[in-house]
Amino acid sequence: MIIVMKKNATEAQIEHVIGWIESVGYTAHPSRGVERTIIGAIGDGRGQAQLKSVEHLSGVEKVVPILKPYKLASRETREGNSVIRIGDLAIGGPDFIVMAGPCTIESEEQLMESAYIVKKGGAHILRGGAYKPRTSPYSFQGMEEEGLKLLKQVRERTGLPVVTEVMNTTEVDLVEAHADILQIGARNVQNFALLKKVGQARKPVLLKRGMMTTIEELLMSAEYILSSGNDRVILCERGIRTFETATRNTLDLSAVPVLKQATHLPVIVDPSHAAGHWNYVIPLARAAVAVGADGLLIEVHPEPEKAVSDGAQSLKPEKFYQLMEDVRVLEKVMRNGIGAKP
Amino acid sequence: MIIVMKKNATEAQIEHVIGWIESVGYTAHPSRGVERTIIGAIGDGRGQAQLKSVEHLSGVEKVVPILKPYKLASRETREGNSVIRIGDLAIGGPDFIVMAGPCTIESEEQLMESAYIVKKGGAHILRGGAYKPRTSPYSFQGMEEEGLKLLKQVRERTGLPVVTEVMNTTEVDLVEAHADILQIGARNVQNFALLKKVGQARKPVLLKRGMMTTIEELLMSAEYILSSGNDRVILCERGIRTFETATRNTLDLSAVPVLKQATHLPVIVDPSHAAGHWNYVIPLARAAVAVGADGLLIEVHPEPEKAVSDGAQSLKPEKFYQLMEDVRVLEKVMRNGIGAKP
Amino acid sequence: MIIVMKKNATEAQIEHVIGWIESVGYTAHPSRGVERTIIGAIGDGRGQAQLKSVEHLSGVEKVVPILKPYKLASRETREGNSVIRIGDLAIGGPDFIVMAGPCTIESEEQLMESAYIVKKGGAHILRGGAYKPRTSPYSFQGMEEEGLKLLKQVRERTGLPVVTEVMNTTEVDLVEAHADILQIGARNVQNFALLKKVGQARKPVLLKRGMMTTIEELLMSAEYILSSGNDRVILCERGIRTFETATRNTLDLSAVPVLKQATHLPVIVDPSHAAGHWNYVIPLARAAVAVGADGLLIEVHPEPEKAVSDGAQSLKPEKFYQLMEDVRVLEKVMRNGIGAKP
Amino acid sequence: MIIVMKKNATEAQIEHVIGWIESVGYTAHPSRGVERTIIGAIGDGRGQAQLKSVEHLSGVEKVVPILKPYKLASRETREGNSVIRIGDLAIGGPDFIVMAGPCTIESEEQLMESAYIVKKGGAHILRGGAYKPRTSPYSFQGMEEEGLKLLKQVRERTGLPVVTEVMNTTEVDLVEAHADILQIGARNVQNFALLKKVGQARKPVLLKRGMMTTIEELLMSAEYILSSGNDRVILCERGIRTFETATRNTLDLSAVPVLKQATHLPVIVDPSHAAGHWNYVIPLARAAVAVGADGLLIEVHPEPEKAVSDGAQSLKPEKFYQLMEDVRVLEKVMRNGIGAKP
Repeated sequence: MIIVMKKNATEAQIEHVIGWIESVGYTAHPSRGVERTIIGAIGDGRGQAQLKSVEHLSGVEKVVPILKPYKLASRETREGNSVIRIGDLAIGGPDFIVMAGPCTIESEEQLMESAYIVKKGGAHILRGGAYKPRTSPYSFQGMEEEGLKLLKQVRERTGLPVVTEVMNTTEVDLVEAHADILQIGARNVQNFALLKKVGQARKPVLLKRGMMTTIEELLMSAEYILSSGNDRVILCERGIRTFETATRNTLDLSAVPVLKQATHLPVIVDPSHAAGHWNYVIPLARAAVAVGADGLLIEVHPEPEKAVSDGAQSLKPEKFYQLMEDVRVLEKVMRNGIGAKP
Repeated sequence: MIIVMKKNATEAQIEHVIGWIESVGYTAHPSRGVERTIIGAIGDGRGQAQLKSVEHLSGVEKVVPILKPYKLASRETREGNSVIRIGDLAIGGPDFIVMAGPCTIESEEQLMESAYIVKKGGAHILRGGAYKPRTSPYSFQGMEEEGLKLLKQVRERTGLPVVTEVMNTTEVDLVEAHADILQIGARNVQNFALLKKVGQARKPVLLKRGMMTTIEELLMSAEYILSSGNDRVILCERGIRTFETATRNTLDLSAVPVLKQATHLPVIVDPSHAAGHWNYVIPLARAAVAVGADGLLIEVHPEPEKAVSDGAQSLKPEKFYQLMEDVRVLEKVMRNGIGAKP
Repeated sequence: MIIVMKKNATEAQIEHVIGWIESVGYTAHPSRGVERTIIGAIGDGRGQAQLKSVEHLSGVEKVVPILKPYKLASRETREGNSVIRIGDLAIGGPDFIVMAGPCTIESEEQLMESAYIVKKGGAHILRGGAYKPRTSPYSFQGMEEEGLKLLKQVRERTGLPVVTEVMNTTEVDLVEAHADILQIGARNVQNFALLKKVGQARKPVLLKRGMMTTIEELLMSAEYILSSGNDRVILCERGIRTFETATRNTLDLSAVPVLKQATHLPVIVDPSHAAGHWNYVIPLARAAVAVGADGLLIEVHPEPEKAVSDGAQSLKPEKFYQLMEDVRVLEKVMRNGIGAKP
Repeated sequence: MIIVMKKNATEAQIEHVIGWIESVGYTAHPSRGVERTIIGAIGDGRGQAQLKSVEHLSGVEKVVPILKPYKLASRETREGNSVIRIGDLAIGGPDFIVMAGPCTIESEEQLMESAYIVKKGGAHILRGGAYKPRTSPYSFQGMEEEGLKLLKQVRERTGLPVVTEVMNTTEVDLVEAHADILQIGARNVQNFALLKKVGQARKPVLLKRGMMTTIEELLMSAEYILSSGNDRVILCERGIRTFETATRNTLDLSAVPVLKQATHLPVIVDPSHAAGHWNYVIPLARAAVAVGADGLLIEVHPEPEKAVSDGAQSLKPEKFYQLMEDVRVLEKVMRNGIGAKP
């Protein structure tokens, strides 16, 4: 933490700030410059929230935080990449992993057909929502426990691991009993009670960035899960909210190299929710491979025009097969040197 | 819902879209213009999510929603203003209501002192957090149940009603047993499980707008509570996230007249969280009165420089008394005609 | 400028950075902390752009700027408030100044009628656009020189000073010959050639914040004008672009106290462009008075439904008179103590 | 344009709106729905600005625009892709074009060295700024005319076409005499006087998206150039301003497929300005190829740590060569089928 003093701060004010910094357990390092004095406050970060209150002291202009607030998620803590294993699959390793399926589980037939498409396309994990976070209370809220059972059945019949969203602390155990990966949706990225609860689960967690969440806040949310005891966290960029309305959200592909530099956790990309229209999904999926992501989360539906939710952004089967072909070509190129250098 | 066809859409494509609209239970009203055909889809809104999938049909350019998705929260449903009564207080009526207190409950002394300041200043409701949504898992997470008990004690000793945040469905009953108003924080504004749960409570709910929630989404979140059976919802504007960093968030005071036109629910303003610095709180509080809000939510602390959280944005007692004086003067002016005309 | 070194930065890397900082004319002040070393670079700010390149050196994690980049606009440079005099009017002094009129000058009749309404309402300055920045090349681009002549005529007949926009360096002299205040529109706030040119004019400049401009950047644009020799700059908050679409832009009223603390220049507010709908203009205008602005810029039109541009946000005459009444009541209250204390 | 009436609008109000629509030269198509009446206003778009004023009429809830406001830039107007030829190069055709060079021209040596690196790396066009839009008036403003002369010299010696920014209408002729492509920078994207002026030039224009410009507004700015007579416009995505601060701006790669669908103009990507840090430039450049852009604009400097501006985001020569290698591999893959299918 750096405390910047006002230009006309008096010596007494500077001394008072130094005393105060030391009273909250930090060491003060003043640098007296030509225009003003700045004071470094060095310590272990525990009193950081309190340190911000130094703004109330006379002569203080502003407070600038310096240290990263996350630890377990940081590359500084752990060398190499975290690789999350689910059966034979390894997320965050050399393979590029595609999770695909319908937004919402609608029926056994729809889910089985989707699983068939996912498998035929060569994707690795089946996604499908049993509990659905819908903006409107009047929209279909998901098949809930019945949907979870279908997911488990289809998983057993096809051998595909499954990922599904959990929205409430009271449902974590149930979802954990049926799924291979627990998904935390964008709207719950700072539902801290839920983060702590999935931090106690023994299944990996797919943590989606909120549309309002900075990359640092996303890492802090991961830190909640990691510090609760679950070290298998997969991060997912899914678009942030901006002023642009041509797409539903703005896919922030820069987040991939930024995260890759900051953390050892795997990073996947969901272009379907970000784009909001199926016709932008394929180019964005290609870009996600090229930017260095570890995988994709894709919406595919046997008949998108009949989907109960998010039909507009779901791919038809043939488009999905094309996407998987493109991904395979690019993945091979990336593996053969591109992207491996830095 | 309006479906805009492409410029070169064929008659067969138009007919196909009309047939599809009718197959999902809507009536189609085509208008053939000079440049292109647009088709109105009129119905009861149930199939709206599905209707969006029409984008997959050939010849469709885009889909434009027309109707507001909220009903119970809308002025169209209910004439006049909803007035929420808490003991002798009425929120949303002619009186301007101020809720004030510390961000976090730290101790009995701190809470009692805060209550004393709140009462001396002439504010009406005591706020204080027992469960704290903190970005970092390493920050103090609140006194939890012990904090709730302190709140109840202070409430009994001072007669001040209390408002406090609830973060998890499993804690709603406990919080309801101790507080007069249940607060849903900005980060939980789309925690739909929690919204449904407080919708079953018998205490009023203070619903804060999320920092990336549109006004329409805020009303949809209110709709979750209202449609679950609790018709006592107070909305709170607390700043949205923008590119500007001089303040923590950007207080969107336009949201007050927009909400006042759209809904019958009361609207209060929290300038403390939006500003992030105590020295902007007083002018913004004055602006909130003048723009037509029903009340304020203010952070005040006996010694802000010792606060465990949000000290930088908390007012010292003497500044709080000044704010309350300003509010009283402006409230009187507003009552005597200004703002009463439209 | 603070250079934050990586956690594992070596002593040699630290020494190299120190040497580099000194090679570009700064003094280096290293503080060796528990977790990492930070190095303050202290100097006169000239080499600041170059200093940012230190990120290329090994062991550097990030660079944090500390000093404000503006000088002439800063309160640190000049005590008291700048008061801009235009005839008998003083902007930035104790009086609250209202500039009003139509978006676009359409005809002599329309401008005269508008001037009559502005005067009858008790506003002080007539606004009206002769050169119009329109998003579409197919929209009316303004009456140009003919509009300027009308403005001058009406000014002579009514005695009202006039403010009008200038969009191109080649038109600055002409506009200066006809108007009392030169307006720089939101889209030209970083048109640096134009800022330098109006910096050489002898008439005051009304500088609108861009919808993409931070408060600091706005002050840097003011600095362009001030450092070119024109010290009469009036700043104008007119809404920033955010994700919210209920209003055209989001009026950032927090910018008023932030600017009042940072600069000695007067600050006015344009609620018409921010809101985009006439029915939000009156409450936002009231809030602008209460938040401590020095004045308002308001769109009023004799018959808004016939306006060639921005009719939706223009007030009808009777609404404008109501606004002026509200402003007068609030201004009196503010003058009698509220807002005068800090 | 669709006019949505209020739920309780009377028949007389509906009739009045219909009459008014027809009085401004449009045809009215009312659809009377279950909940409310909507009225389509169909015409040639000229009166669109005026049509918005219908919001002042009683019973009107809101106005929803339907048609795209751009024509010449639209794919509906012109089949196939516009290919801009500069000597032997073709931008917007099958080749992927890289423009590279320093942010600012600093000296003959620096520019010659940069040109050597650009050529050695296999890029096609040299970029370099003679007129620099700097946020601060105290930063180096460019070598101006002397820089243009250096650019021309280096162009003659190396055979590389050159692109450079023009900031003022008065300098367009001079820049046109020295450069092969005129660049309009992000801050001037809505400097309409400048757009009209370069619309009269006979050299192609590289139009950068502003950091708060919507895709539709970017196309409207292109429309200014096209409708002024210059049909050689290259669009450039360079990052938009969002709440995320880990990168300088947020590169909106979705803009590439959105633009490719909306317009026939070529689209290139500038990852250097968007990222603001050199270490994110290579992955983002790879993503730009994979998403389907027509080219790249890259900052490279012989010694970035000595650059007078934007050193932090400039690549060192060896990194630039690596980027060019990656681009070549990906370009080949894209050409051989990927991305060619839709």
